[in-house]
Amino acid sequence: MIDFILTEKEFDKNNIPWNGNRFLIGNGYFGIRGTLEEYTKEYMCAVNMAGIYDRAGDAWRETVNAPNPLYTYIKVNGKKYALPENEPVSHIQMLDFENGIHSRKTVWKTENGEITIKCERFASMSRRHLIAMKYTFSSDFECDAEIITGIDGDVWDINGPHFVNMRTGYDDGVNYVTGVTGEKNISVTVRDTINADFNAAVESENTENGVYRHIFFKAETGKEYSIEKIAEVTTSEDDFKTQGDIADITYYGLKAEHTAEWSRIWDVSKITIDGDDEAMYALNYSIYHLNCIAPRELKGKSIAARGLSGQVYKGAVFWDTEMFMIDYYIHTEPQIAKTLLQYRIDTLNGARTKAEEYGLKGAYYAWESQDGGYEGCSDYNVTDVFTKRPMRTHFRDKQYHVSAAIVYGLMKYINATGDYDILNEGAMDMVVECARFYRSLLIKKADEPYYEIHDVVGPDEYHERVNNNAYTNRMAKFVFDTALELIEKYPSDEYDDLKIMLKDSSEKIFIRKPDENGIIEQFDSYFKLEDVRVDEVRSRLIDPKEYWGGAYGVAADTQVIKQADVVAMLSMFKDDYTSEIMEKNLKYYEPRTEHGSSLSACMYSLLSCYTNKPETAYPMFMKSAKADLIKGGKEWAGLVYIGGTHPAAAGGAWIVAVKGFAGITEEDGKLICKPNIPEKWQGMSFKLMYRNKLYAVRIDRENAAITEI
Amino acid sequence: MIDFILTEKEFDKNNIPWNGNRFLIGNGYFGIRGTLEEYTKEYMCAVNMAGIYDRAGDAWRETVNAPNPLYTYIKVNGKKYALPENEPVSHIQMLDFENGIHSRKTVWKTENGEITIKCERFASMSRRHLIAMKYTFSSDFECDAEIITGIDGDVWDINGPHFVNMRTGYDDGVNYVTGVTGEKNISVTVRDTINADFNAAVESENTENGVYRHIFFKAETGKEYSIEKIAEVTTSEDDFKTQGDIADITYYGLKAEHTAEWSRIWDVSKITIDGDDEAMYALNYSIYHLNCIAPRELKGKSIAARGLSGQVYKGAVFWDTEMFMIDYYIHTEPQIAKTLLQYRIDTLNGARTKAEEYGLKGAYYAWESQDGGYEGCSDYNVTDVFTKRPMRTHFRDKQYHVSAAIVYGLMKYINATGDYDILNEGAMDMVVECARFYRSLLIKKADEPYYEIHDVVGPDEYHERVNNNAYTNRMAKFVFDTALELIEKYPSDEYDDLKIMLKDSSEKIFIRKPDENGIIEQFDSYFKLEDVRVDEVRSRLIDPKEYWGGAYGVAADTQVIKQADVVAMLSMFKDDYTSEIMEKNLKYYEPRTEHGSSLSACMYSLLSCYTNKPETAYPMFMKSAKADLIKGGKEWAGLVYIGGTHPAAAGGAWIVAVKGFAGITEEDGKLICKPNIPEKWQGMSFKLMYRNKLYAVRIDRENAAITEI
Repeated sequence: MIDFILTEKEFDKNNIPWNGNRFLIGNGYFGIRGTLEEYTKEYMCAVNMAGIYDRAGDAWRETVNAPNPLYTYIKVNGKKYALPENEPVSHIQMLDFENGIHSRKTVWKTENGEITIKCERFASMSRRHLIAMKYTFSSDFECDAEIITGIDGDVWDINGPHFVNMRTGYDDGVNYVTGVTGEKNISVTVRDTINADFNAAVESENTENGVYRHIFFKAETGKEYSIEKIAEVTTSEDDFKTQGDIADITYYGLKAEHTAEWSRIWDVSKITIDGDDEAMYALNYSIYHLNCIAPRELKGKSIAARGLSGQVYKGAVFWDTEMFMIDYYIHTEPQIAKTLLQYRIDTLNGARTKAEEYGLKGAYYAWESQDGGYEGCSDYNVTDVFTKRPMRTHFRDKQYHVSAAIVYGLMKYINATGDYDILNEGAMDMVVECARFYRSLLIKKADEPYYEIHDVVGPDEYHERVNNNAYTNRMAKFVFDTALELIEKYPSDEYDDLKIMLKDSSEKIFIRKPDENGIIEQFDSYFKLEDVRVDEVRSRLIDPKEYWGGAYGVAADTQVIKQADVVAMLSMFKDDYTSEIMEKNLKYYEPRTEHGSSLSACMYSLLSCYTNKPETAYPMFMKSAKADLIKGGKEWAGLVYIGGTHPAAAGGAWIVAVKGFAGITEEDGKLICKPNIPEKWQGMSFKLMYRNKLYAVRIDRENAAITEI
Repeated sequence: MIDFILTEKEFDKNNIPWNGNRFLIGNGYFGIRGTLEEYTKEYMCAVNMAGIYDRAGDAWRETVNAPNPLYTYIKVNGKKYALPENEPVSHIQMLDFENGIHSRKTVWKTENGEITIKCERFASMSRRHLIAMKYTFSSDFECDAEIITGIDGDVWDINGPHFVNMRTGYDDGVNYVTGVTGEKNISVTVRDTINADFNAAVESENTENGVYRHIFFKAETGKEYSIEKIAEVTTSEDDFKTQGDIADITYYGLKAEHTAEWSRIWDVSKITIDGDDEAMYALNYSIYHLNCIAPRELKGKSIAARGLSGQVYKGAVFWDTEMFMIDYYIHTEPQIAKTLLQYRIDTLNGARTKAEEYGLKGAYYAWESQDGGYEGCSDYNVTDVFTKRPMRTHFRDKQYHVSAAIVYGLMKYINATGDYDILNEGAMDMVVECARFYRSLLIKKADEPYYEIHDVVGPDEYHERVNNNAYTNRMAKFVFDTALELIEKYPSDEYDDLKIMLKDSSEKIFIRKPDENGIIEQFDSYFKLEDVRVDEVRSRLIDPKEYWGGAYGVAADTQVIKQADVVAMLSMFKDDYTSEIMEKNLKYYEPRTEHGSSLSACMYSLLSCYTNKPETAYPMFMKSAKADLIKGGKEWAGLVYIGGTHPAAAGGAWIVAVKGFAGITEEDGKLICKPNIPEKWQGMSFKLMYRNKLYAVRIDRENAAITEI
């Protein structure tokens, strides 16, 4: 069995941002970036709070980072040792992602000898408010040691500061920092307790932004001195209770609970791949991230595009969730999938408001959805690298396809769980409102019989304001058809007019057919654009950070696209198209696709599986599965930092593994398995939830079996 | 009586490009820039040929400049004296625009004393192929003089070179240079003869690009030595004959003919303003330019946006002609107006081809129309100052209003001349095809009863891709109504279906009404744009040459507009609106208008006249009338040079004078006069053609009279 451990054996300052992402731990309530204990905000530390938003002044609204209770460093004989300032003799950073435990060990040479710091920590999966840390010091000489550990309220922010009011203090062995946000007076409180296994003098210190303990002790040669910290994070928005008093909780007790919980999760979610350790490792690492950010116990919260790795993309929820992540939850912990959908149901009014703002009807879900469905996306979402001016983009106003993605996610959930009750719990209204929204987008030329949708941005964001984007039109039809189907299943007088309207819309909406070469044109006149390849377009960049899209980007007037668009549509409506058409479109669009979004490769991979080309699918599957493991992801859009974890790629990798390679699909309410695994794979085994039952799937090169457990 | 003479009394090298425009002479067949005789191409000399186009490689197609037969300079005792290299003692440049004669006098100090050069020249208004020049030398000391004069084929080009083949030579006293263009093998031949009134030795020289005479003589103190040159310009495209052999034509004879012809023109076209010499001067200077570029004797040629002042804007014909220039010709020489319209009729197929290219029906006239109605406008009509990349603009594909302007121009012509015959000569087809074009632009939202036009650029080019531009929609309705009216006047079975379609279009097209404040919103959501003033927007420029419009220009997301848009519509459909609405819109839009186009001020001025505010109208009238007299016009759009003469502003000034201040309008087929002249004006008098009759208009502060002559 391979180890689920991620290791970095050397220290490289340049890797700090990337390590912050790939060594992330989290429990859905918060994510803790994989930064080191001695780091302050300039190294992008974050205890990133799920769904807690604040807007500072005119800057972008974003999630809030809690005061950091992991902040700790060492002084030896009065001198501080810390990364990255002091070059270490050795350094190792590890993430045990089987158990959700982050650790590090660093050795420095001092004038008198070597000192060693070890630290492990975890975001409690059993008690979601808690963070635990064990920090250990040793030296190969006798010395005066001082461990400084505290709660650092001077947090990293992209569009902050968010805490307009900070209170710090200590009371009966518990230190605390409370920050209060400016926009909505949300308080975020972090409290901690310390337990040391040795004699020490402890002094407390509190400043404007933090509260610290100074732990002084004489260290003997070779002896390990450990402190254990239990920290609790709460907010005034919590709708679930803390469990237990942190003063009573022990590190080892909490760790045992935590690892037991992870075992329970892995029992259902682990995927075994025989014959390809690298793929198995990457896929399960992706699943680890999906588990770190799942909103367990949280009511009506969803998942941000960068998970809980920070404030990038404003901590907002994108279509990524319903398109790429929800499948994993539907088939492992359907309750989480329902929570994600509940977030959309709860924020229906936000979507209605947005539709109204644009003179449209129904529900236009936010491109970047924050609390209440509020649209976090600005009209100026990219900064021009040449002029440093904000650049008018059309993510917010023209990416009409997001509402359809939510309906699509809902239907995936209903089909796989049989939970039609959700329709009575608000989802029916949601579907109907989305259908009304697409209806209000339809236009007809005076002398043409069909409906069109003009002036949109499809999944490929590099081409703004196009007409009849194939994906968008097909998704609109899907929403009309879904609403019709549900109305017919649950008839009601109030839907009579709507029904006529939906039929009319579904019948007359323009759905682009493959051309004489079998290719579906991405939008009106796409084929008239300059037909060049990705590398050629890249070579035209003047500044590596410049935006490829917008009105004048290097890709804008070419056929080079950011991500799967027609290919996404084909993979989502595979039953409508022959394998030949799918293949031809894959072949056409692949060399024209930058894969500038982590949502892209998995779609190409999935469609390759659907055309029985697992070897073609494999590299793009690996690209998705390794999105957070491989350095060099896209970190800039214009001058806006867009780094972080890529849970949509993780979810996409899971979809390819299960629906693509394993070929899991449903027919007549039953799961079936038509595997198509790469040659080097000897087999796969995993578990799946389907309609309230858990199944074990076992595939080898000859057989495939699905067994109810 | 004031003199119609423009004078520059000092020499300033920086004024060379501007002087090239304002000292222009021309006869409709060609324009000759007001550069000095010794200049070569780096000083933008041009004998700019009307309607002769060539495209060199992938560069923009543009009009061709003929070899320059004016090229002449002096050597004294072997040393060359020329501007701008040699600082003069005195210099004067003059344009006698009553007679269409350009002259200059320059004095240089030499080692031995002063020398003087005088030169006068004209573009023959009587024999359109001819240019005449008289060049005179004198010195206040005895010297060896040499006049070098020739035909310089190394011409100034913006997107050249156009002559792929040059022949130069001399034959029996006549020198010649023939250039042949690359695209269509058009030959342009310039021939000249010389007559000198003194004894001299003449040597001829011909080079690859030119042919020159060296005229050597001993100059006596104080004596004037003159040479007279008659040059003939012909092209292989000419459809009229040269008159006479240049060897037989004398300078003085030709000059007498020429000035007589100008007298004849001025007899009808001069406008007298009592009490305001400045206005009268500027207005008649504008009229001078309109006369220099009028395509007299040319069949089916029109006028370029920069007249005959060079290749700016590709020498192409814009809506300017039918919107702003044609009125002057209609009321002075209607045959010229008909020639302009004939150009549009002849190029109907070009307009059909353009409509087809965009999947539209009918006739979509070119934004920049060249020979055959070919669209000269590129999709990339501006260069980004920051990246130096061509910038995707939407002048070509989205300025739908140009077809309507042509129909509008036609109806002005028909109404004022009563020449309905033109309808049988192709104009009816043109109107019908324009109506079909607008019909094909109409779209209807699925559940709305009215038609809209989306994704357009209105007259205000700073806001691209807007919906329901008030001007464009109104003009489309005008075309529907005009076509209907003409079909009803000249019924034909073939129009039965069309009639139903036109009625439907006219009735249902969305025409924006004034809002609760009386303001007509320029396009959908215009009022939601940032409401700032022109100076604020200007202050945001990083580079003075950067383009204000496009997707990211400083004006794009503000209410600042380039030029009259709603105001243009109001002035064109004044009978549909109350004076109060006109006033309110003037007040609203004026501070938001950059007047970045020479087509703007006159529209504001005209509408001010219509609201009985001549004093408000006056400064904008003067701005139009002085467009070519005042330095500091807009010379750059991005990195593209856009300087030149402004005949649309000249025509606009004429419209304001006659239709605004004099208040000439027609009621029931008769001209009437409701003057509204500025306070300082004592009166106006001018002549007008109307329905084949010439009228004298005489206005003073008490009375107005229109008398048939």
